[in-house]
Amino acid sequence: MSYSLSDFGSYRAGGRLVEVSGEPCREIAFTASTRYPYDPNGAFPVESAYVQYFVPSRRRDRPPVVLLHGGGMTGAMWETTPDGRPGWLHLLLDRGLEVHVVDNVERGRAGWKPGLWPGEPILRSLQEAWRLFRFGRPEDFAARRAFPNQQFPVARLEDFGRGFVPRWTSSGPAQVAAFEAVLRRLGRATVICHSQGGEAAFEAAARAPEAVERLIALEPSGFAERPELLAGVPVVLARGDYLDCDATWRGLTARWRDFAAALRGAGGSVAELDLADGSPGVSHMAMMDRGSADHLDRLPGL
Amino acid sequence: MSYSLSDFGSYRAGGRLVEVSGEPCREIAFTASTRYPYDPNGAFPVESAYVQYFVPSRRRDRPPVVLLHGGGMTGAMWETTPDGRPGWLHLLLDRGLEVHVVDNVERGRAGWKPGLWPGEPILRSLQEAWRLFRFGRPEDFAARRAFPNQQFPVARLEDFGRGFVPRWTSSGPAQVAAFEAVLRRLGRATVICHSQGGEAAFEAAARAPEAVERLIALEPSGFAERPELLAGVPVVLARGDYLDCDATWRGLTARWRDFAAALRGAGGSVAELDLADGSPGVSHMAMMDRGSADHLDRLPGL
Repeated sequence: MSYSLSDFGSYRAGGRLVEVSGEPCREIAFTASTRYPYDPNGAFPVESAYVQYFVPSRRRDRPPVVLLHGGGMTGAMWETTPDGRPGWLHLLLDRGLEVHVVDNVERGRAGWKPGLWPGEPILRSLQEAWRLFRFGRPEDFAARRAFPNQQFPVARLEDFGRGFVPRWTSSGPAQVAAFEAVLRRLGRATVICHSQGGEAAFEAAARAPEAVERLIALEPSGFAERPELLAGVPVVLARGDYLDCDATWRGLTARWRDFAAALRGAGGSVAELDLADGSPGVSHMAMMDRGSADHLDRLPGL
Repeated sequence: MSYSLSDFGSYRAGGRLVEVSGEPCREIAFTASTRYPYDPNGAFPVESAYVQYFVPSRRRDRPPVVLLHGGGMTGAMWETTPDGRPGWLHLLLDRGLEVHVVDNVERGRAGWKPGLWPGEPILRSLQEAWRLFRFGRPEDFAARRAFPNQQFPVARLEDFGRGFVPRWTSSGPAQVAAFEAVLRRLGRATVICHSQGGEAAFEAAARAPEAVERLIALEPSGFAERPELLAGVPVVLARGDYLDCDATWRGLTARWRDFAAALRGAGGSVAELDLADGSPGVSHMAMMDRGSADHLDRLPGL
């Protein structure tokens, strides 16, 4: 696959300036060989999103696609898969679509400020990913014995885990605001969000529905508080396989059904898409599955 | 500018697996609406570098260039400048060079593990950047009155600051190891490093000198402990303007001179390049200066 781009680069969207004063200075080992008086006071730009964009030379007359990662992940999850295949970023570019890849607030290149958000950041273990992303039963982690038909490349589990980053569970409102800023900057975009990214994407879309061509949510962990604000936004709820494996997923499945009903009740349009229908073994990381290109083909409007 | 790429994507290099056990589980607010039992135990891949690479279709027969950011920065510093011009990443691709952009350990998409490194992470304020990157006198920060001839786009200081990320001052050895892994994976590369990135780059190059075509260091804050290991690596020490503005920079200037002498004494080759010679106003962020394209033209071997 080759890529002809008329432009690519990055920008920041959203955020605010925090002013710190009255804190004591302290001397730190600044580098291996120099000491330095560190002053924690001053002005700090915080809570912006980092966005890396790619514009194909043969760009179809379609709104850009914006990709929003899930919890404990960054925009890198849409690039090269853990087993080295092109990611959805590449496949979307190949279709002539302009793509904007977000590192939302506190993730990856967006940066974070120590002490800014309440609570402690948490980092996902391989065991948690194994269970929560439905690769296999917890007791089969050690042997890396995956669920039957599993499409996720479990042999590359550790490579996948090198992409995990810590997350705060209290930065949600800042993530919504930054993602809203991304949408407003783009004016009109198709959103593809994953898992915890759904929380920011739905809420931001509810605040700027005119900026959203379509909202495609892969197994979102949350929604907008007021579904009626999304009545004008075509929504796709896509899901994978093994959703009866534990209470977490049974609970989320029920919430997707309830939210779809609420959206329809508010006059909205929602398509529920079972990616495992005809393609068993779709994991929570559909964009990394062996069938990832086929999964993308199933998504409407791209 | 347009870009024809035969490939692009990302990979991880280096790192190790940390096993945590015996820590208590705790229930956390996992998302805005779901609680979740977080288990801090398990296996965590840590201390790898994230590398995003771009291969131009019309690739010259030259080793790839690997770009290593400075302290409190990520690989994004080589992309679009704060005032929206193409970065060195773009300019190098335009020359037909393959480019690998590193987020080293604990920065950006490389991720970090809470509690893994001793000490507290520090985040740079705009005031510190103003002073330390030699944009102007500290007392002129409020008015944004820059040094005469200043080439850094100080009107975009806040946009620049949105790219700052926290850093630990104790992660140096891990950064050396990860960057060495990047070099060994590439086999042979031209390294361009900046500021604190110089510490990791010189030390990694000393461990894998056969993998380094040339080491171009922009105002590095540190060097290899054993310069004699770099005797076979052509080194360029590039510097900007205003280096007599404070003791930090006077000290570093003296260290560059001393290291160059030590390298020469060990039989090495080192070129000292004053970017401000003929182009006054070069800041610490030469790759973002208004004259950034000219500065790049001054670097040999690219």
